[in-house]
Order: sequence, then structure tokens, then C-alpha cells
Amino acid sequence: MTVQTSQSQVYSQLENTFQQVYQLQHLSAIAHWDAATMMPSGGNQARGRALAEISGLINQLIGSAQVGEWLQSAQEHSQELSDWQQANVREMHRKWLNATSISNELIKAKSIAGSRCEHAWRTYRSDNNWIDFQPLLQEVIQLTIEESQQRGEAMGLKPYDALLNLYEPGQLSSEIDPIFAKLKQFLPEFIHQVVARQTHDSLILPQGKFPVEQQKALGCELMKRVGFNFEHGRLDVSHHPFCGGVPEDVRITTRYQEDDFSESLMGVLHETGHAKYEQGLPEDWLQQPVGEARCMGIHESQSLFQEMQIARGKPFLQFAAPILKKFLGNAETPEQCWQADNLFLLNNRVKPGFIRVNADEVSYPLHVILRYEIEKDLINGQLKVADLPEVWDQKMQTYLGLSSKDNYRDGCMQDIHWTDGSLGYFPTYTLGAMNAAQIFSAARQAINGLEQQIAKGDFSQLNQWQRDNIWSKGSFYRVNDLMRHATGETLNPDYFINHLQQRFLS
Amino acid sequence: MTVQTSQSQVYSQLENTFQQVYQLQHLSAIAHWDAATMMPSGGNQARGRALAEISGLINQLIGSAQVGEWLQSAQEHSQELSDWQQANVREMHRKWLNATSISNELIKAKSIAGSRCEHAWRTYRSDNNWIDFQPLLQEVIQLTIEESQQRGEAMGLKPYDALLNLYEPGQLSSEIDPIFAKLKQFLPEFIHQVVARQTHDSLILPQGKFPVEQQKALGCELMKRVGFNFEHGRLDVSHHPFCGGVPEDVRITTRYQEDDFSESLMGVLHETGHAKYEQGLPEDWLQQPVGEARCMGIHESQSLFQEMQIARGKPFLQFAAPILKKFLGNAETPEQCWQADNLFLLNNRVKPGFIRVNADEVSYPLHVILRYEIEKDLINGQLKVADLPEVWDQKMQTYLGLSSKDNYRDGCMQDIHWTDGSLGYFPTYTLGAMNAAQIFSAARQAINGLEQQIAKGDFSQLNQWQRDNIWSKGSFYRVNDLMRHATGETLNPDYFINHLQQRFLS
Repeated sequence: MTVQTSQSQVYSQLENTFQQVYQLQHLSAIAHWDAATMMPSGGNQARGRALAEISGLINQLIGSAQVGEWLQSAQEHSQELSDWQQANVREMHRKWLNATSISNELIKAKSIAGSRCEHAWRTYRSDNNWIDFQPLLQEVIQLTIEESQQRGEAMGLKPYDALLNLYEPGQLSSEIDPIFAKLKQFLPEFIHQVVARQTHDSLILPQGKFPVEQQKALGCELMKRVGFNFEHGRLDVSHHPFCGGVPEDVRITTRYQEDDFSESLMGVLHETGHAKYEQGLPEDWLQQPVGEARCMGIHESQSLFQEMQIARGKPFLQFAAPILKKFLGNAETPEQCWQADNLFLLNNRVKPGFIRVNADEVSYPLHVILRYEIEKDLINGQLKVADLPEVWDQKMQTYLGLSSKDNYRDGCMQDIHWTDGSLGYFPTYTLGAMNAAQIFSAARQAINGLEQQIAKGDFSQLNQWQRDNIWSKGSFYRVNDLMRHATGETLNPDYFINHLQQRFLS
Repeated sequence: MTVQTSQSQVYSQLENTFQQVYQLQHLSAIAHWDAATMMPSGGNQARGRALAEISGLINQLIGSAQVGEWLQSAQEHSQELSDWQQANVREMHRKWLNATSISNELIKAKSIAGSRCEHAWRTYRSDNNWIDFQPLLQEVIQLTIEESQQRGEAMGLKPYDALLNLYEPGQLSSEIDPIFAKLKQFLPEFIHQVVARQTHDSLILPQGKFPVEQQKALGCELMKRVGFNFEHGRLDVSHHPFCGGVPEDVRITTRYQEDDFSESLMGVLHETGHAKYEQGLPEDWLQQPVGEARCMGIHESQSLFQEMQIARGKPFLQFAAPILKKFLGNAETPEQCWQADNLFLLNNRVKPGFIRVNADEVSYPLHVILRYEIEKDLINGQLKVADLPEVWDQKMQTYLGLSSKDNYRDGCMQDIHWTDGSLGYFPTYTLGAMNAAQIFSAARQAINGLEQQIAKGDFSQLNQWQRDNIWSKGSFYRVNDLMRHATGETLNPDYFINHLQQRFLS
């Protein structure tokens, strides 16, 4: 850097670099979406190469020595920057650290081992073949341990926290531990009570077929009604539902089963929650790091807000009942099935099972806590990969009363996350669920007659409140400050526990 | 470059650079396709920025001083390279010249003026507003004249030839002039004869509606039958039909009108011709410049081969007639409409009109020659933009017997090409038509009973011949050599003239 470079020039150069990154990320995001929704299978190899190239290029741009120098200079003169610019520099620095804190050799080794393990997993899982899968996973975990140590050193964090911070910056496992402990104490007994109570429910099940076209039309209708902007997004089909694309053009997906409309419908509303967050990010800062969504735990809070707090609740189902009947009604399904009370029972059945992604709202956190405890122990060297199935089985028995012995497929081999070494991600699901309950509680305090508005299908005040308090903040606040500003306190699991009690035992 | 760098290292570095370019072009191509087929309108601005970024990045990569040095060194030691490597270096050098032969200021100025003019054109054209359009076009033409001079100087070509060579490398207007002169002499009188003859035809027109879903199913069926590989491509809908994507994943598009199936069907087969070329490019060289399609005039030859030489011919329509009837047959359309002879009449009607894109096979070259003559004069300074409408009208009267006076919309304002300064492109359409006739003639010589094979829907030998002689050659040969190897001589307009006589007056 020349001596003449002024501070405002330094900051501008940083903005320019990250703006360039934003454009490249746009192309990467659309190509990822396309690969999952549109691409014919023969295009896979070429797409993989193109995506790897752009991902390397983005990493190079962010992690350059020049960016490091500019960041240091900008931080030393941060008093010359506005508060949003300061937050932007903080987020740039975080990205720079993520890009530079592990060696290129390790990135490459992990990427190769991860691809190999993930690819093999697709076969081994369906064959229930733990024996051949174990050494591949072992290699990935070993490299992830090295990653956690390198990152931890660069970031001044414990190894597991360094991984967690890739998804949930600013959170420490020492903060999560007591919160999860409280849930772990509450949930097992609560599940028993709910299951016992639900045996008395007289649920009327939908019958017959619900054609894909009708399910899609219903999904689009409800997306519109809750505030998804189709000028800036789409709904399509993919094998695994996700929310992708870019804030200016958010692409959500679902999958349809013609004998079960609920899974797709609730999935669509879940992804719509993610999408509304993206569509509501601060327009003036969209192309900069500070304009991005805060973290996965807040992102998941917005999807679970839409799905769990709103869509599976009675007021929403009161509003939606006639719409569901209009779009899906058929000769085989009894009239009473479409009543709000019955739709409520249909969408809130609790039944502990082996599979996380199929879990109900009450069991779900136990699936997450089980994984969180195991991955922490794997990273800290207190658990060996070889012992994984046994520990999984023990915890499943303790938390959910089910044994996964010899059932690797529905046990420790069920998830994709560990196959490419994405340890540290799982807790964000349950952080999201708890954040959602706390945020909904704050919104209900702030908005008079919120439940009545929802029952009438009027989401304008609620969306405005979320926009003002969550979406438009982007990454301006750290996560604890975002929660404090929006709800008056940092994450408190009591809101979630209260929500469960209200919903399932009131 | 260090003294130690060996020649094979230099060549490898060039390959690596252009391989990187290939990956970025992949993302750009998919994002362009997405913008035309899937993207909601609100995503337009962000997409434009992302595409501009990647296009600048690609230009930087190709046009670097380092690449220039490597190229010089590789050319000096070309005897150490294989023949494909030598051709690859030749194509790399061409791309390097294209990227470096005009100044950055001019690129930028032309891009801004071009965007402005193209954007305004969409409104001014539909308003028939020449007065306000003229100064915007004037600016673009002036910048394109400067471009042609800068490029011409760098490439050792006359200004217009330098533009032509962006699309048709290796072709000179001095070669095209006598060929077009021959067509210009032949066509006007020929059109009169054909029109007079067709008044005696008793054509049975299709009636009623042809639902989009049925047209799409028919299009896919025929695409498969003629050899489009759906493992490596798709068919979708866009406002302007095109062939995009990448060779490993070719995306073609069409548009449907429910009261006219022919336009979409022939359009689909046209784009399928482009697509089969892309799908047939040399696999081993796909990621390098020498693996690309030769030029626009050969690309268009492959689409017109599929559409004009094959699909609108009697043998193909004999094969296709029962398939059309099966997919499209309805109560309103008389049975005889679906007979091959009637489908032949339906797909080969000649009627001179104002609009190039709607023109029949016989009138089309005159639309092109008119534009070619005008754009040459614009570039050489022999025609002013202000005089464009008058010259257009005169030529339309001479060539096609129609006056476009005061009808700017259907006259000199009908095409998008000039609005962003893409002069030099138009001749490739008619070069393609003539190449197609010449290539088909060679294929018929080489394949015993080709017409009978086509009539049975057996395209295996024909596809193999095209693969061997055109597709798999990529850019290995220069265009004249490609034609010589495939057909025994360079472009000769007599094949096209013979084809027209056979098809329309035999």
C-alpha cells in the first residue's frame, strides 16, 4: 500500500473486492440451484468443475494478503467509518479469517476425502454397510480435527467452537451447553406426556390422491399470502428441499408425494420463511458482507418461525383451512378433515422415530443434541469413530427410547453432514427453533391482536415487525445483540419450552 | 518468464488458463440461459451485474500480458507441439487478439452506448419512432467504426473484415462479395417463379388448437429421434428461441403458439441442429479453444442442415407425418392435412415479407444481403445513419418488391443486432444456409440411400458422418479447410441454388 492511500480509499477498495465476490457468488448460487432442479445428469461433472473453479476464485479474492493489509488498516482507523461500515469491516475480517485460517493442503485433502466419503455414503447407507464406511468417515473426521485446531488457533477459539463459528459466528459451546442441558432434561418426559395425550385425539386423515399440480398451486397461493415476492423468486422441485439463489432472486424448492400433501406444504412454508429473510435483507448493503443474513441459527429461526410458530398453529390453520379445501378437496376425503381443529391435529402429531429429518417439533431437538454431543467428543478426541454406532444407540435409547443397534442406515449413517466434515452445523437447527419461539413471543408482545390478524390471513404487521427487527439488520449486529434488540434478551430456552407446552399440552 | 521454463510448461500454462476460462464461461452460459427461461423479472439487475463481472474477468484472463508472452513463445516453438496443440495455440491467439485489440475505454463506451440503445430500441421500435432512435444508433455505429479500425489494425484486416472475423474467423468480405452477388442475381426472379407456381398448390391447413403440452411432447420425441441426447441437454421456453448452455449440457428453447405448431416444431429442430453440433464437439478438447465450434457460419449450417436440408424435406416429413398426427391430431383438422405431401407444402410456402426472422428459405438471403451491404457501407463511412431508412426502402423494393417507407418498425428498426453494435454478424446466417446445402450434398454422396434412411427415421449414419466430418473437428481446421475436408471444396453457392431449385421448382 502506498503512503498516499487515504483511509476512505482503503475502505472503498475493500468494498470493491467484496462486491466482486458478491457477483461471483451470484453465479455460483444460481448454478447450484440449477444443478439441483434443472440440470440433466450428464451435466454433473462439468458443473462440478465449474463450481470448484469459482469457489477457489472466491476464496483467493477474499483471502488475499492485500485484503488482509486493507483490513488491518481499516480496523486501525475505524473511527473514520460509519457504524454500518464498521460492522461491514468486522464481517469482512471474519470472512478473511475463514478463508485464511487453514492451510491450502488441508483444504484440498479435506475436499478430496469429503467427496469420496459423501459419494460412497450414498451406496453404503442404503446397504447398511458401516464396516466399509467407517474408514472413509475416519479420514474425514481426522482432517476435520486438524481443521478445527488450525482454525481455533487463528481465531483464538477452542477447536469445536472454531467449527461452530463457521455457521454461528459469535456463539460458543459453553453458552449452548447449559441451554441444551435444560432441553435434555425437559423433553424426554414431555414427549411421553404428549404421546399419551394424543392417543385420545380423534384425527381424521386425508384420503385419496392430491395431484402435484394442485399441491403446487396451493403452495404458491400460500407463499403469496404470507408475503413471498414472486417478482424476486421461484418455487421448484428438487430431491432435497432447500432455499437457494440470491436475495434479489430467491429460489426455494420442495418435493411432492401425491398421497401426503402436508409434508410438501409445511416444507414450502418452511423454505418461504428462509426466503422472506433473504428478500428482506438491507437493500443498501446487499452486495456487502454486512448485508448478508446473520447466521444459520437466525436463518433457521425465520424458517421455523414461518413453519412452527405460524403455519402449524391454530390461527394460521383457521385462515388456511378453506384454502386447503378449495385446492385439495376430493371425493375420498371427509369434509371434517378440512376443519382447522383437525388440520391442527394432523400437523402436530408427536411420535419419536429414528430419522431426524422426519422428526416432529418435540423430538427434533433431541436428535440435534445427540449429534452435538457426539461431534464435540469426536473433535475433542474423546470419542473414536469406531465407537460411534454404540454411543449413538445408547443416546437414542436414553433420549427417545429407541434402539438403533445394527441399524446404521437409520442410525449414525443417516445424515450427510459428517460425510464431508461439516461438523458444527447441527446445533443451528435447535438454536433456530428456540430463537423462533423467543422472537414470536416478542412479536406477539409488540403487535396487538397478532393471532386475530393471522387467523384472517393478514400478515402485514407481522412481516413489517420481522423486517424491522431481523431481516433489515443483515449482519449489522452480532447474534446475541440481534436477539437482545429484537426480543429484549439473549437466547433463553424457556420461550421454546413454553411454546411446546402451549401447543401440545394446553 | 524464467529461463528455466520449458516449452511444454509454457503450453501447459496456456491450457490451464484457458481451462479456467472454460469453467467461468460455463457459469456465464448457465446464468444467461436461466435469465431467458427461469429468472423472475426482479432478478434482472443483479444478474446483469454478475454477468458483466464474469465477462470482465474472462477478458482479463484471456487478454493478460502473460498470456501474450506465453503465446509468442509457444508459436516460436510450435514444432514441439502436436497438430491439435498447434491449432489450439492458433485459436488461443485469436482469442487473445480479440481481447486485446481494442482499448478498455472503447469497450466501456461501446458497452454503455449499446445498452442504452438496445434498451431504448424496445420502446422506440414498437412506437415506430425513428427520430429518437437515430442519435442513439448513430453513437453506437460511430463507436463500432472506431472498434473496427482498432481491431483491423491489430489483426491486419480491413475494418469491416475485423468485425466479420469476430464471428467468422478466416472469412473476408472480398470472398463473400462474389458469392452474395450470385445469389442476388438469382433470387429475385426465382422468388417470382416459386410464388407463381405455389398459387396452384392445394394446401390443407391445420385447424383448431394444438395445446402446448402436446407440442412440447412432439418436439421432445423428434429431438430424440434425430439424435439429441437428453442426458446432456434440455428443451425449455423463452421469448426468443436459442441454443445455449455448454457442450456437456446443451439448453435449447422454443416458444409455442397454440394455433400454429409449425413455427415451434421447425424452430425446435433448428435449435436441435445447433445442439447436436455442441454435443458432438471433440470430447478430449472440450475445455480448450480448439474444442469449440468452428464459427457462426458453420454453427448455422448445422441448424439449417437439420431444419432446411432435413426436416422441411419430403423424406423427413414422410417419417414424421404419422408422429405429427399421433401427437397433434384433433377433430377439426382434416385427415389429409397430416399426409407428407401436404406437410411439405405447409412447411415450404414462399411469400416475401418485411421481417427477416419470419422469412421463408428463399427470401431469407435477400434480407441478409441487404443488411450486409448496408453495414459494410456504414463501417466504411459510405452511408450515414440518417440515410439508413431511405437506403433500406430502396433495397427492399429492388430485392423483395416491398416498400418499407415510413415503416421503420418493420424496416431498419426490426433487428436487435445493430443496437449494441454487433455488425458483421448478419452474413453468417446465409453463409450457414449455403454451407448446409453443400454439406448435405457431400453427405448424400457419401451415404448410400440416405434419403431412404431419413424416410425411415434412421439418422445413425448421417449423424456419424456429421460427427466425423464437422462436429468432432471443433476448431481444428480453419473454416475453408473444414469445408474442403468435408465437402471437397470451399464454399460454393451453386449447391444452395441447386437445393432451392430442387425443393421449390422440381
